[in-house]
Amino acid sequence: MSHADRLTGEFAYIDWIRKQTRTTAATVIGIGDDAAALRPAPGRDVLVTTDMIIEGIHFDLARMAPRLVGRKAMAVNLSDIAAMAGVPVAAVASVGLPRAISRTAAEQLYVGLRELADQFNVALVGGDTNASPHGLVVCVTLVGETTPLGAVRRSGARPGDWVMATGAFGGSILGRHLEFTPRVHEALMLHERYDAHAMIDVSDGLAADLGHIAGESRCGAMIEAAAVPISDAARSLARDKASLLEHALHDGEDFELLFTLDPGAARRLIADQPLGVPVSRLGEIVAERGLWLVDSSGARRPLEPRGYDHFRS
Amino acid sequence: MSHADRLTGEFAYIDWIRKQTRTTAATVIGIGDDAAALRPAPGRDVLVTTDMIIEGIHFDLARMAPRLVGRKAMAVNLSDIAAMAGVPVAAVASVGLPRAISRTAAEQLYVGLRELADQFNVALVGGDTNASPHGLVVCVTLVGETTPLGAVRRSGARPGDWVMATGAFGGSILGRHLEFTPRVHEALMLHERYDAHAMIDVSDGLAADLGHIAGESRCGAMIEAAAVPISDAARSLARDKASLLEHALHDGEDFELLFTLDPGAARRLIADQPLGVPVSRLGEIVAERGLWLVDSSGARRPLEPRGYDHFRS
Repeated sequence: MSHADRLTGEFAYIDWIRKQTRTTAATVIGIGDDAAALRPAPGRDVLVTTDMIIEGIHFDLARMAPRLVGRKAMAVNLSDIAAMAGVPVAAVASVGLPRAISRTAAEQLYVGLRELADQFNVALVGGDTNASPHGLVVCVTLVGETTPLGAVRRSGARPGDWVMATGAFGGSILGRHLEFTPRVHEALMLHERYDAHAMIDVSDGLAADLGHIAGESRCGAMIEAAAVPISDAARSLARDKASLLEHALHDGEDFELLFTLDPGAARRLIADQPLGVPVSRLGEIVAERGLWLVDSSGARRPLEPRGYDHFRS
Repeated sequence: MSHADRLTGEFAYIDWIRKQTRTTAATVIGIGDDAAALRPAPGRDVLVTTDMIIEGIHFDLARMAPRLVGRKAMAVNLSDIAAMAGVPVAAVASVGLPRAISRTAAEQLYVGLRELADQFNVALVGGDTNASPHGLVVCVTLVGETTPLGAVRRSGARPGDWVMATGAFGGSILGRHLEFTPRVHEALMLHERYDAHAMIDVSDGLAADLGHIAGESRCGAMIEAAAVPISDAARSLARDKASLLEHALHDGEDFELLFTLDPGAARRLIADQPLGVPVSRLGEIVAERGLWLVDSSGARRPLEPRGYDHFRS
């Protein structure tokens, strides 16, 4: 890092960002005022979600390109809007930049934010740039809107629903937690064509997030061990068959969609496979509260809704 | 801090927050799903602003109660919505909590956030709780809506407008930067009854923020040195008369409204004094680009649009 490359002031960075930024039809006021202004489509609800990622907890700048940090900060929020079957509209990004960060690194962070924003037609309409005395902190808030069908909640699962998921699980630490594509389009299709009853994106872990659906829906869920889709990354991490399932159920940061459907719609979806990413049946929703794992003999044991917890690590 | 008082997990804290949280009429979905959902009044634009505050930069937890940190994180965002003459509606708050923080401190942080949110009828609809390897980080994003009159922008000042401000300036570091009340109601009245042309809240500093209005409005501004309202705090900090004016012009974090009015409306406002807080004339907008300070002899000198910059400190 040369001295000339050193980030010398908040304002220069903001000016640079402002010059890079495109707006979209929904943007009435973008970067450069006290707040941004958006014009949502009439009759739609406004969705809001926020995620903060912190150096030393969620990423290690020594081993990860700043562009991928920016990309991830945007991607996790897009995944949350997807989980509601919403349409992402605009984002604001607050950053805490270590004083020693290079201008190039700060710009690459923004390039990463923009990369996915552009891909999903999201306008970057504002933010807040600060010095940070220690590591890099990035907080993105994403605003979206519902489709005319409304949002899909965690709480809509009904006993008899099939538990379904996109993709495969486990081992995201090997790279997928950074480079995943949020399932925005897939979620909209699942809502519109298959009437998803409940939906969540798997961030805490398959078991933990299934626990969220079951808990909010005031019912339980049963998962067939043999039906859990296991990622190649989990296979390369796992010591044995039991640990393979452990990775898939509890690793987290898969950012796949976990959802429930009426069995008829689920059968149709499995036959259609319209999403590009494979979709499969994991089990079903039951009236009795709790989570269970069913093995090939039909025996069931409790499934702990445990995921990765940064406070315990 | 006893062991029992130690914060043991993100989920316990989120559960506690969820139990405390009230909703408002605009809240369709609050805390507990992948995103919150809001229903804006028909025909209004949605305002979005975000601010991050970081331990060691914006506050020192050794000398500041966690409640005041939470209060400030909410207050600075309310001030931004005020500056657009908007109505605040809902907030999301992301926090990075040091592992050693006590449960009591984490709860007091939230109590501070809620204190102002309740006062301005803002629902706390979501957030993200993380461990932080170093200090406390709080990022609030506030969503508001415009009134039927639309937003007041920084860019609406016209040559001949009077430059006006609420309150007095300088020395906010002595306490006002923490305990100020955002000028939400005042801004709405200035918009509705006096047709404010341009408005900003003074965070960077009076001169810097006047520079933002002038720059965005593509004109200049002249301030009368004798007309700058000086706070008692600035008086207790200043060494002499010159440094008194320095404090008022450049300290920042006053969170007063700086705005421009047609001279007729400005005279009426000065006569009415309807805001509770005093409002005064500081100078006027001119066609020539730049900022000037005019002394009692009528001589003018350039005014540097300089404020407090965390990157240079």
